[in-house]
Amino acid sequence: MWPETEGTRRLGIRYPIIQAGMAGGITTPELVAAVSNAGGLGTLGAGYLSPEETRYAIREIRSLTTKPFAVNLFIPQSVHEQQEMIDEMDRYLNRYREQFRLKPYAGSPFSLPDAFLEQIEVILEQGVPVLSFTFGMLPADILRKLKRAGVILMGTATTVQEALVLEESGVDLLVAQGSEAGGHRGTFLGSYKDGLVGTLALVPQMVNQVEVPVLAAGGIMDERGIAASLMLGATGVQMGTAFLTCKESGAHQTYKEALLQGKKGEATVLTQAFSGKAARGIKNAFIEEMEDYQGGIPPYPIQNVLTQDVRSAAARQGRAEYMSLWAGQAFELCQVQSANGLMKRLVQETTQLFARQR
Amino acid sequence: MWPETEGTRRLGIRYPIIQAGMAGGITTPELVAAVSNAGGLGTLGAGYLSPEETRYAIREIRSLTTKPFAVNLFIPQSVHEQQEMIDEMDRYLNRYREQFRLKPYAGSPFSLPDAFLEQIEVILEQGVPVLSFTFGMLPADILRKLKRAGVILMGTATTVQEALVLEESGVDLLVAQGSEAGGHRGTFLGSYKDGLVGTLALVPQMVNQVEVPVLAAGGIMDERGIAASLMLGATGVQMGTAFLTCKESGAHQTYKEALLQGKKGEATVLTQAFSGKAARGIKNAFIEEMEDYQGGIPPYPIQNVLTQDVRSAAARQGRAEYMSLWAGQAFELCQVQSANGLMKRLVQETTQLFARQR
Repeated sequence: MWPETEGTRRLGIRYPIIQAGMAGGITTPELVAAVSNAGGLGTLGAGYLSPEETRYAIREIRSLTTKPFAVNLFIPQSVHEQQEMIDEMDRYLNRYREQFRLKPYAGSPFSLPDAFLEQIEVILEQGVPVLSFTFGMLPADILRKLKRAGVILMGTATTVQEALVLEESGVDLLVAQGSEAGGHRGTFLGSYKDGLVGTLALVPQMVNQVEVPVLAAGGIMDERGIAASLMLGATGVQMGTAFLTCKESGAHQTYKEALLQGKKGEATVLTQAFSGKAARGIKNAFIEEMEDYQGGIPPYPIQNVLTQDVRSAAARQGRAEYMSLWAGQAFELCQVQSANGLMKRLVQETTQLFARQR
Repeated sequence: MWPETEGTRRLGIRYPIIQAGMAGGITTPELVAAVSNAGGLGTLGAGYLSPEETRYAIREIRSLTTKPFAVNLFIPQSVHEQQEMIDEMDRYLNRYREQFRLKPYAGSPFSLPDAFLEQIEVILEQGVPVLSFTFGMLPADILRKLKRAGVILMGTATTVQEALVLEESGVDLLVAQGSEAGGHRGTFLGSYKDGLVGTLALVPQMVNQVEVPVLAAGGIMDERGIAASLMLGATGVQMGTAFLTCKESGAHQTYKEALLQGKKGEATVLTQAFSGKAARGIKNAFIEEMEDYQGGIPPYPIQNVLTQDVRSAAARQGRAEYMSLWAGQAFELCQVQSANGLMKRLVQETTQLFARQR
């Protein structure tokens, strides 16, 4: 049932189950290490970390596991800054700041930290085995440097077209991010609307067109999703939402509760309200209120910086209605358990599910 | 590999493969009968047929097969007619009518034929084994009448919530229509945007909540999609797009060519331009031009009636840019073959795919 595949061989893991590199403090070193120790591939979501925080977290992971793990980075986005649009959004957000007794935003969204190049240096310095990334392609010189250093590279594609350019660039594996996936869309060619292909339709088409192994992502929560993905031709899966409610996950308690209290068949929505980039999550007041906003939403990462103080204050006060509650379309299958327990269950139940087909 | 399931038992078929009841002349009696004769369930898409045409087609099917088959109907939609909106759209569409030297629209969209009740009578009179339907629920009195007559009822759900109300109403099976599916969205509770859940996320959640067997639909094109659906807990699959390019399909040649000439990773879009109801298809000039239309699009079925002459004229002249080219998100996997050949291939290759897992 679990023979070596091209994917597990390249990644040096036992089971083709990758824990997604969710950013924002979710992927604690404990979570990453627990997944890797259980035979999967844990991933540090370093998208919002400084180089120092990235180095520190990697060292923590190393102290907890000797197994391979990954670091996930966001490809920096070049944005056209429109000061008027930014100022208008800034004024709009003051209504929330007032509620939380926050000062009006004082920082300049122009001084966004471009930590990316320094993070790459940390990855090389620390000998990180696998680098996964989203929102685009690695610059060619950086990609060459990483490959020379033996770092396994895993790019995120939401369409066959993106998969083809990522493969051409030289990545070792691809993550096929289906429209079911929670959090930010990885689409980088065209509008995010062009990249909303369901996992079940995306994976077979991608597998037909590329040579590198493809990992399925989006809507996979249990043995059924894993078995289905393998049937579609994926070499394995990347799962995010399923790990959010694990004990080792750093997701805020209020966020975990929102995931576990889902009503039957509750829909998730795609929104640009929190960060300026389309992402899937549980609908709440902040998203609904932004739908009535007449101006334009500044592009990622500017909007992300602008809303940060509000999101943080909401989290401190346990106010789910103003927090970003990223979740995939099958989040209602979330359970409370240890990461090790989840991994064991996934492996066992997938094995049993296949056995029942005999 | 192909044991009797609750789904195949209820439907009286050998293989849990249902050919979707696509409307608009696609599901010829030859196509329906070929699928049923091959051990699946062929479906007559009677959504746009008159009662007389429905009766005639059923008799034709009966002359070609003794196996079970289904008829698919559209639940009638109550619409609020806004004359001004209709007139404005009517004037807009004249630009296309001029191109095709058509007269300005002369009929009244108010006199929409409500053939539904008469179609139900035809189904009872002809002893049709299976009735599938979409766009809502069967009125309670009609549902009781059909059940008393022994007609197996199959409802379409795009969310768990819709599945629960359909099950409560008394249907025998459910079709879980994932967001990948081509053609019209079946969503009837809330906006179509609430019903865009990927097949891989939708099926396991629905299976967890309902007792009746669930058929997976949306993005399924070959043995990989079938095997994946069975792994997700579906009792079988409903496939539409894969049958469009079959030799027996009544789809217009220009439509078939558009499906077969898809570029690598070409995206489909959801549009209300053709019918007033959201449907997935290949993007073309008509859809793009309607995106710039400033007024409102009259609701289904009014818009469908208004655009009919343009679509028909475009089809006659082989002008794909003004035809509705409904297609699921994996349409690039379409092949030219006989329906019998497709069915045989699906059964054989699914069997082989499962065998390789042993």
